[in-house]
Amino acid sequence: MTPTAVSALRNIATRLRIDSIRSTTAAGSGHPTTCMSAAEIMAAVFFGEMRFDPQNPGNPGSDRFVLSKGHAAPILYAAWAEAGLFPREELLKLRRIDSDLEGHPTPRLPFVDVATGSLGQGICAAVGIALNARRIGSAYRTYVLLGDGEMAEGSVWEAASMAADYKLDNLCAIVDVNALGQSQPTRHRHDLAAIAAHWNAWGWHAIEVDGHDLERLQEALGSARSTKGRPTVLVARTLKGKGVSWVEGKDGWHGKALKKDEADKAVAELEQQLVEGVDRPAIPAPAGQPRSAPAPDYSTLPAPGYKRGDMIATREAWGTAVAALGEIDPRVVALDADVKNSTFSERFQKAHPERFFESYIAEQAMIGAAMGLAARGAIPFPSTFACFLTRAADFVRMAGISFVNMKMAGSHAGVSIGEDGPSQMALEDLAMMRAVPNCTVLYPCDAVSTERLVVEMARIGGLAYMRTSRPKTAVLYGPEETFPIGGCKVLRQGSADAATVIGAGVTVYEALDAYDELQKSGIGIRVIDLYSVQPVDVTTLTAAAQATGGVVFTVEDHYSAGGVGDAVSEALAPAGIAVRRLAVREIPRSGQPEELMDRYGISARHIADAVRKTQLVAPGGVRS
Amino acid sequence: MTPTAVSALRNIATRLRIDSIRSTTAAGSGHPTTCMSAAEIMAAVFFGEMRFDPQNPGNPGSDRFVLSKGHAAPILYAAWAEAGLFPREELLKLRRIDSDLEGHPTPRLPFVDVATGSLGQGICAAVGIALNARRIGSAYRTYVLLGDGEMAEGSVWEAASMAADYKLDNLCAIVDVNALGQSQPTRHRHDLAAIAAHWNAWGWHAIEVDGHDLERLQEALGSARSTKGRPTVLVARTLKGKGVSWVEGKDGWHGKALKKDEADKAVAELEQQLVEGVDRPAIPAPAGQPRSAPAPDYSTLPAPGYKRGDMIATREAWGTAVAALGEIDPRVVALDADVKNSTFSERFQKAHPERFFESYIAEQAMIGAAMGLAARGAIPFPSTFACFLTRAADFVRMAGISFVNMKMAGSHAGVSIGEDGPSQMALEDLAMMRAVPNCTVLYPCDAVSTERLVVEMARIGGLAYMRTSRPKTAVLYGPEETFPIGGCKVLRQGSADAATVIGAGVTVYEALDAYDELQKSGIGIRVIDLYSVQPVDVTTLTAAAQATGGVVFTVEDHYSAGGVGDAVSEALAPAGIAVRRLAVREIPRSGQPEELMDRYGISARHIADAVRKTQLVAPGGVRS
Repeated sequence: MTPTAVSALRNIATRLRIDSIRSTTAAGSGHPTTCMSAAEIMAAVFFGEMRFDPQNPGNPGSDRFVLSKGHAAPILYAAWAEAGLFPREELLKLRRIDSDLEGHPTPRLPFVDVATGSLGQGICAAVGIALNARRIGSAYRTYVLLGDGEMAEGSVWEAASMAADYKLDNLCAIVDVNALGQSQPTRHRHDLAAIAAHWNAWGWHAIEVDGHDLERLQEALGSARSTKGRPTVLVARTLKGKGVSWVEGKDGWHGKALKKDEADKAVAELEQQLVEGVDRPAIPAPAGQPRSAPAPDYSTLPAPGYKRGDMIATREAWGTAVAALGEIDPRVVALDADVKNSTFSERFQKAHPERFFESYIAEQAMIGAAMGLAARGAIPFPSTFACFLTRAADFVRMAGISFVNMKMAGSHAGVSIGEDGPSQMALEDLAMMRAVPNCTVLYPCDAVSTERLVVEMARIGGLAYMRTSRPKTAVLYGPEETFPIGGCKVLRQGSADAATVIGAGVTVYEALDAYDELQKSGIGIRVIDLYSVQPVDVTTLTAAAQATGGVVFTVEDHYSAGGVGDAVSEALAPAGIAVRRLAVREIPRSGQPEELMDRYGISARHIADAVRKTQLVAPGGVRS
Repeated sequence: MTPTAVSALRNIATRLRIDSIRSTTAAGSGHPTTCMSAAEIMAAVFFGEMRFDPQNPGNPGSDRFVLSKGHAAPILYAAWAEAGLFPREELLKLRRIDSDLEGHPTPRLPFVDVATGSLGQGICAAVGIALNARRIGSAYRTYVLLGDGEMAEGSVWEAASMAADYKLDNLCAIVDVNALGQSQPTRHRHDLAAIAAHWNAWGWHAIEVDGHDLERLQEALGSARSTKGRPTVLVARTLKGKGVSWVEGKDGWHGKALKKDEADKAVAELEQQLVEGVDRPAIPAPAGQPRSAPAPDYSTLPAPGYKRGDMIATREAWGTAVAALGEIDPRVVALDADVKNSTFSERFQKAHPERFFESYIAEQAMIGAAMGLAARGAIPFPSTFACFLTRAADFVRMAGISFVNMKMAGSHAGVSIGEDGPSQMALEDLAMMRAVPNCTVLYPCDAVSTERLVVEMARIGGLAYMRTSRPKTAVLYGPEETFPIGGCKVLRQGSADAATVIGAGVTVYEALDAYDELQKSGIGIRVIDLYSVQPVDVTTLTAAAQATGGVVFTVEDHYSAGGVGDAVSEALAPAGIAVRRLAVREIPRSGQPEELMDRYGISARHIADAVRKTQLVAPGGVRS
C-alpha cells in the first residue's frame, strides 16, 4: 500500500470513530467503544478489500459482510454512509423509532443479510452465505467480524467446524480482540496465541495481527484471499475505545454513550488525527454476476402418489416432497444435523448431494447456516428431531427478526414417538415456533397434506415450520386435495353435533376414533384437522364452534401451553367462545406410543369422555 | 493391575455388553452398539476407579458419573445392576411404561443426577457437579462419558472452557471415539490426535488411549486423578458394537436392537469371552462425608426495604434479594454469562464471590452447570437477559425432565427495554418457560413483590423462572405484603366493573393508568397483577371475570402466543369465559420504551380503548 492509501484508510477509520461517537451520543445509548476498537478493521475490509456495489447492497455478486458482534452497529452504519449509500446525517437518527438504523442491525436495512445482536450467530450465517456462493457459482467472498467475548458461545465453534468441513476458503473471519467484555475482561484477554490456537485446532488458517495497523491488516486480508482449502481468521489485537486517549483500553465504558461534552472532547481529539489532502479509495466493483436460474414452475410438480389408507409417516412424506421440490427448484437446499436417516432428509441428499449440507450434531450451526443461505436467495429446508430444534431456539428467534425465507422441519414430535422417552419428545416446539409472530406453523396429519404443504411452504415467502410425526399414519386425503396455508379441514360433521373437536397430526386420528365411538351412543361431533396452526382459520373454526353450541375441545400431542389450544383459544375469543384443551400436562416417560397417548390424556377414549361429560352438565354460561 | 484384576474387569465389560444386548432386544428398540463401544470404559470407571456407595447412589461423598451420551442408557443401567443396586432381571424391563429404566436416563432413577439424551448437555452438568464438590468441601470426583459425535455440539466447548477456567482437576471426561454417528461416520473418525488437539487448545489434559484396553484405561484414569490444575479428558479409540464380530465397527447398526435370534447369537459369542474363577473387585467407599450446613431459617430474612412509590427496576430488586438470600442459605449460588452489571447478579458476586460462577457469554454452559449444581444440593440462580435464555432452551427443556431445583431469571423482558431493538427484547420467554409443565413462572411488577418472590422461589422445590424488567417501576406494595406462588393481586375493583384487565410486570402500570383514564368517563375496571403466571390463580381470576360479565383482557409485554393471555385463557376455559389479548403481534423495532409500548398496542391508551369498545357492542354470546 502506498503511504497515501494508508492515510486514506486511516482517515476513514477516524471518521468511522467520530460517526460512532456522534450517533450514539445523539441516541443517548449504544456501544461507541465497541465500534472504536474495530475502526481500522472496518476501514480495511470495506475500503481496502471488499468488492461491492455501494449503491446496491443486494447485488448478488458483491462481497458480503456480516457484523456478528452486532452491538457495533453504529460503525457498520457509518461504513455504509462512508461508502455513499446514504447521507452521513442519517446516522444521527440512530435508534429512533422513525429510523431503520436500529440499536442492532436488522434486514430492514438493505445491507444487512441477517439480524445480529445475539452473539455467535453472525458467523453461523456467514457460513451459509459462503456456501451460497458455491450454489450460485459466484466468486463473492464473505467477511464476518466477531468480538473476542463472542468466542465463548459454542455456536462459534459449531460454525468453525462446518466451515472447515466445507473448506470455505471464500470465508474470512476477523476477531476484534479488544480484551474487554461487558462486565469484565474477556477470557483470553490479549493472548492472541491462545485464541489462534483454538482456530488452528479447528482447521482454520489463523493470522495474528495488530488490529490498528492498516498495512498489516491489508496484508492479512490478502493472505486470507490467497489461502486455499480452508477458511482464514484474523485474530486482531485492538483496544476498546481506541483513538480517544482517556477512553481507550479502559474498563467501565461498555455499552455507554458519551455525554454531549464528552463526545465533543472525544471528537476534537479524533479530528486532530485526520490527515488532509487524501482521497477516499475507489471501491472495486463485484467480480461478476453469478448465474441466475429461471423461475421454477411449481405447477409441474406431480400430485402426491398415495392412496387413501396407505400407512406413511409424515416425516417420510416430508423427505419425499422436499427431494421432489429440489428437482424443479434449484434454490431449494437441505441441511441436516446427523439424523437424516430418521427425518428422511437423506432423500434430498441422495437426489441433490451438492445442495445438501451437513452440520453434524450442531443444530445452531445448521439453522444459522440456513439463515445465511436464505438471506442470499436459497430456500433452505433444515431439519432435525423437533425437540432438538429447541437447541437453536435463539436462532429461530433471530430468524424471525431477520425475516428470512427458511423452511424448518421438526420430526418425532410428541409422546407418540414412544420408547425413546421424554428427552426425544418435542412437546414445546409449537409454543416455540408460534412465539415467532411471522413464522408459519404447519402440522399435517397424513402424507398427502404433508406433500402439499411442503410446496405451499416453499411458495410463500418467509419463515415456516413443519412439525412431523414418527408413527405411520393412514392417508386421509385424495391426491387432488389442496391445503392452503391458514386453512383447516372439517373431516366429520352432522346437523346436531355436540362439540367441535380440533386435532392436528396424530391426534386427528384419535378424534376420528372418538367420533366413531360417540356415534355408537348417538352423539355427533365435528372433527377438524388443524393442519395450519399459524395462521389459523378463524372463520371455519368460529362457524364450527357456533354450530356446536360453543363447545370446543382441542387435542394435541404437545404440552398445554403455547400450542394448538392456545391458537384456537385466541381465534375464538372474539366470538366469546372458550376452548377446553386435551394436552400433555406433565413430564412423560418411556412407553409404547398408544400407552403414552392414553396415559397423558390425548387418546380417543379421553376425547369421547370429555364430550360425554358436556352432555351431562352444561358448561358455565355458554350452553343454555 | 494384576492379571486377575484385569480379567475381572474384562468379565464385567462382557457382562455389560450382554446386558445391553438382552435389554434392548427385550425392549425391541435402543442403542446396543453404542453401549458396546463403551463397555471397557464403563467397567474401568465404575469398578476400577470410582469410589461410591452402590446401595445409596445419592451419597453426597460418592464420586459421580454422568452419561452425556444418554442413548447408551442400557449400559449405565447394567453397570448399576452389576454394582448390586437392583437385580439384573430388572434390566429386561427397559423402556417399559412400568419401569424407570427409560430409553434415556432421567432422575426418576436414583443414580441419575440429570437427564441426558440431548447431546452435549451432560458435560455441562458435570462441570456444575464438579463445582459443587468445592462448594461442599468434598473430595468426590466427577466422571462424564461423551460420544465422539457429541463433540459437534458447541455446548461441549462452552463447558470445556468453563472447566478450564475453574481448573476443575476433579473432573474427568472420557470421549468414546467409536467413529460412527447416527447417519454417517463422525467428523474426525478415529483421528485421536485431532480430537486431543481440540481439548488441549481448550486447556485440558488430553490422553489418547485404546478404549478397549483395560490396563491403559486404568493408567489413564490414574493419570487424570493425579493431574492438578486442569481437567483431564481420555480420548478413547473404540469400535461401535465391539465384542460381536459381525457387528463391530460396522455402519448401519446405530439405534437398532438386535432381533431375538441375532441377540442369541451375539450373546453366545460374548459368553465365550468370559473367564471363569475371577471375582468382581470391591468398590471403594466414598472418601468421606462432606460438611453439611444447618437448615437455613428463612424467617430471619428482613422485609423488603422499599417505600411505596420508590422507583426501582425489578432486575435490581432481584439482584438485591438473591444476594441477601445467599447470606442465610449457603446452598444458594449464582451464575452469570457476562451481563452481571445489567442483571444485578454482581451484587451476589460481591457478597459471595466463592459461590458465584461465570460462564462468560455461554448461556448453555451456564444453565447446564446450574443443573449440575442443583442436582447435588445447591440452589442455583442463573441469570442473563431473558432473550438469551432462549439460547439455552434445550437445556431448560431438559431441566424440566431432570426435575432440578433451579431458579432462573431473565432480565430486560419485552419492548419496554427500548432502543437496543428486537434482538435484545425477550418476547417469547414466557412461552418457552410455560411450556415446561413443571416450571413455576413468576413475573413481578415491583421491587417488593420481586424480593418476596425470590424467597418463595427458593423455598419451593423444583424449577422456577422469574422474568424481570429493565425500566424502573414504582413500588406498589407495602413491605409486609405476601406473594404466594399461584396467587395474584386485585389492585382495583368496584361494584360495577366493566371488565377485568390482567397485567403483569410493566403492563400492570399501564392497566392502572387505564383505570384512572376510564374513571374519568365513569367506567370502572378490575385490575389484576398476575405476578404468578404458572401456576395461575384460577379462583381469583374466575371470580373477577364473572364479576365483570365475562369481559376479560390480558395485556402483556410479550408476543400473543404462549404467555399471560394463554395462561389466563386456559384458566378461564372451564368457566366458559373467553379472553381477549393485548400483546405484541409483530417483530418490533428500536425506539423509546413508551413509544414502543404504545406502537405495539400494550399501553394504557390501548387498554382504555379496548374496554370502551365493550361498552358499545356486547361481545358474542357472553354479555346479554
